[in-house]
Amino acid sequence: MERIKPHTLSGFMELLPKKQVLMEKLMDTIRRVYSLYGFTPLDTPLIESSEVLLAKGGGETEKQIYRFQKGDSDLSLRFDLTVPLAKYVAMNYAELTFPFRRYQIGKVYRGERAQRGRFREFYQADIDVIGDGSLDIMNEAEVPSIIYRLFTELGLTKFVIRVNNRKVLTGFYELLGLSQKAADIMRTVDKLEKIGPEKVRGILTEDLGISEESAGKILDFMAVRGTNQEVLNALEAYRGQNETFDRGLDELSTVAGSLTAFGVPEDHFALDLTIARGLDYYTGTVYETVLTDHPEVGSVCSGGRYDDLAGYYTDKKLPGVGISIGLTRLFFILDDVGLLSGDVPTAPADVLILPMTEDRSWAVSFATALRAAGIRAQIYAEPKKFKAKMTYASRLGVPFTAFLGEDEIAAGEVSVKNMDTGEQTRLTFDDAIGAIRAELDGKSALRPIAE
Amino acid sequence: MERIKPHTLSGFMELLPKKQVLMEKLMDTIRRVYSLYGFTPLDTPLIESSEVLLAKGGGETEKQIYRFQKGDSDLSLRFDLTVPLAKYVAMNYAELTFPFRRYQIGKVYRGERAQRGRFREFYQADIDVIGDGSLDIMNEAEVPSIIYRLFTELGLTKFVIRVNNRKVLTGFYELLGLSQKAADIMRTVDKLEKIGPEKVRGILTEDLGISEESAGKILDFMAVRGTNQEVLNALEAYRGQNETFDRGLDELSTVAGSLTAFGVPEDHFALDLTIARGLDYYTGTVYETVLTDHPEVGSVCSGGRYDDLAGYYTDKKLPGVGISIGLTRLFFILDDVGLLSGDVPTAPADVLILPMTEDRSWAVSFATALRAAGIRAQIYAEPKKFKAKMTYASRLGVPFTAFLGEDEIAAGEVSVKNMDTGEQTRLTFDDAIGAIRAELDGKSALRPIAE
Repeated sequence: MERIKPHTLSGFMELLPKKQVLMEKLMDTIRRVYSLYGFTPLDTPLIESSEVLLAKGGGETEKQIYRFQKGDSDLSLRFDLTVPLAKYVAMNYAELTFPFRRYQIGKVYRGERAQRGRFREFYQADIDVIGDGSLDIMNEAEVPSIIYRLFTELGLTKFVIRVNNRKVLTGFYELLGLSQKAADIMRTVDKLEKIGPEKVRGILTEDLGISEESAGKILDFMAVRGTNQEVLNALEAYRGQNETFDRGLDELSTVAGSLTAFGVPEDHFALDLTIARGLDYYTGTVYETVLTDHPEVGSVCSGGRYDDLAGYYTDKKLPGVGISIGLTRLFFILDDVGLLSGDVPTAPADVLILPMTEDRSWAVSFATALRAAGIRAQIYAEPKKFKAKMTYASRLGVPFTAFLGEDEIAAGEVSVKNMDTGEQTRLTFDDAIGAIRAELDGKSALRPIAE
Repeated sequence: MERIKPHTLSGFMELLPKKQVLMEKLMDTIRRVYSLYGFTPLDTPLIESSEVLLAKGGGETEKQIYRFQKGDSDLSLRFDLTVPLAKYVAMNYAELTFPFRRYQIGKVYRGERAQRGRFREFYQADIDVIGDGSLDIMNEAEVPSIIYRLFTELGLTKFVIRVNNRKVLTGFYELLGLSQKAADIMRTVDKLEKIGPEKVRGILTEDLGISEESAGKILDFMAVRGTNQEVLNALEAYRGQNETFDRGLDELSTVAGSLTAFGVPEDHFALDLTIARGLDYYTGTVYETVLTDHPEVGSVCSGGRYDDLAGYYTDKKLPGVGISIGLTRLFFILDDVGLLSGDVPTAPADVLILPMTEDRSWAVSFATALRAAGIRAQIYAEPKKFKAKMTYASRLGVPFTAFLGEDEIAAGEVSVKNMDTGEQTRLTFDDAIGAIRAELDGKSALRPIAE
């Protein structure tokens, strides 16, 4: 037979079993935490009509889209979860209850240039709260607590949620008379961390034609640092000159002032006036999340408040707030910097059962009893030598093996070996199940990330 | 703004929130049960190189494939989970431990003619056990117990797992001297239930040119019915004439004989000699699962034993056994015939918190306490009238609402309303959490299907 060399496309993540188990644990944690905040799961097709998916127009993204013809249909693979959400909400407006809170974890597709750590197929894990006509600021205030809880449950300890408000920025540039140049300024200021204030000043004055005085004010403004209260106090100095700014400052105060009630420690939160988020459609609070020890990675969870989710589908005004995690990239980074836990059990079974007699019905009965008790059990049925069986057990990394030979069967018992300690005990089925469960319970709380 | 009418492609399932929650519950149950039997989760790309995906050649399936060009690459969307598994195992042979047991729940794509209940994007939920060179019959014997446990945990009670063995059929046709026509005969016999024995006899003798005598023997054979023991006894009458048949009969006896130890009641299991499964590659035990009250639906979980998973990628002999559930179709059918449970909680939150004062920090603290206790809580923050808030609560179907007015705040308490009974109580946070959890625990065991 002529054979084809099996391979997986470049830019597509495909994990070996143990890594996949950790990825599943990440996803389970995300689902669980998002659910705790009242978000309902959603699942939308990966393929949409190109007309629908590209309704907004694409720009940079459009070139990356996987677009193709099938029969008479012009189809595209989704490139994010936001456009499908907009479609869903516009389409099902009458059936949904607003504010509508949904989470979605799903694969999206972008034909990026292939390079290490860049993926063409990757998971996003999003939440959004969509209001009908209006949406209370409390929804924006809640977001940092969701990020905090999620990252903590994943096992991360060294991260900071950076928060800003687009109205503060917009208002500030308005009061400087620089509204026309606001987008260019934000793009420039975004480079502060990378290129430093003097180079930013150069671009502002020379490339953007901003006066030395205004550039100085911008750099002063961006240099505001300190505790939440110190930043808010500094911003108060600008109050009363611009309505948008004042509204933004009120919103920022509400968001920062809710942290304690929402259970977010202040050291995981920073007001940061340099954060703008590129996308045009953010209009209020914006969020970025950085791993303190790995600033080179950039933001791993970002989002913000927007006023118009679905204007290209409906005349309903649908404001919202949302965040997105680029999960495949996050997983790749965690693996790369060695933050994935080595302690989380990754074996496919808790107990590997080794029948030692011709008749395996007693072994099968023990497997059935374990499974009935919710313990994951596998029967190793292949007629291999004992050593091969034990090699199999240790390659899988099962925490327990169970032997059922003639002695055990005669006594109605089973020999259970703890693979970590090497300790082996003969027990009744019930006692074995109890002992195994006690040991497993201690590991079930282990988090997928160990920092 | 020019607006695009939002729509979802025909043949693509997209559920409203309450239905989606039931679908998630189905998937969670499948994941949990598959895990109990020692299967590890796998996730492979939706897109593969066409060369790899179509290595086996396609026939009927090939026309249905979503195939397209991106840059220089000829790509295809996967049409099942078996070919990607074959690729994965062949590619990662050295890294995997055999027998390799994996489950995968994922979307696959087939450009079927659009009609009611037919999907172009649909979930499959598969398990496979892959051996390296050989695979013990015990793996085949275990499969009915997985199906039984899964369907039972989903809430189904009226189903039968039909089992046959391809060696029995192959051997039988060999001993009749009809090996050359075996495939055609199996296709014809497959129609027995639909068209009846006389029409089958007609096709066998007239279209396939089989003698009246042989046709009679085939129909006699297929007419064998009864308990497992009766069917096995009837088959014993053919023993000794053909080696393949005898081996198949031994296998079938082993599979049927293991049911009790595996905990499968005999009334959910039937040896059925008419089952052949279309695919050429099955070589041993084959399975179908039918809903007793809905025979028109056909099999909802099928599979079997095969000898050569990945011959088009590798010279390793990789025999296996697997089953597949067409999950999207199953969900559609369950919904259609009214078997989805109406009792499973489908609200996005367990408690909807209604702040009744300007300062909402006490309400936020209660939400934080609930979430810390693992209870799903949503704060309704919109400045709406009380009636609108209660309408929101009942539209979501939340089991509890919690009110925090000035009296509650002053007393350090919360008023909790059970939305089912209408009963309202003022409690401390701790007592409220205890009372809510007690109520929720009773519902957590509810199954997604109510038969």
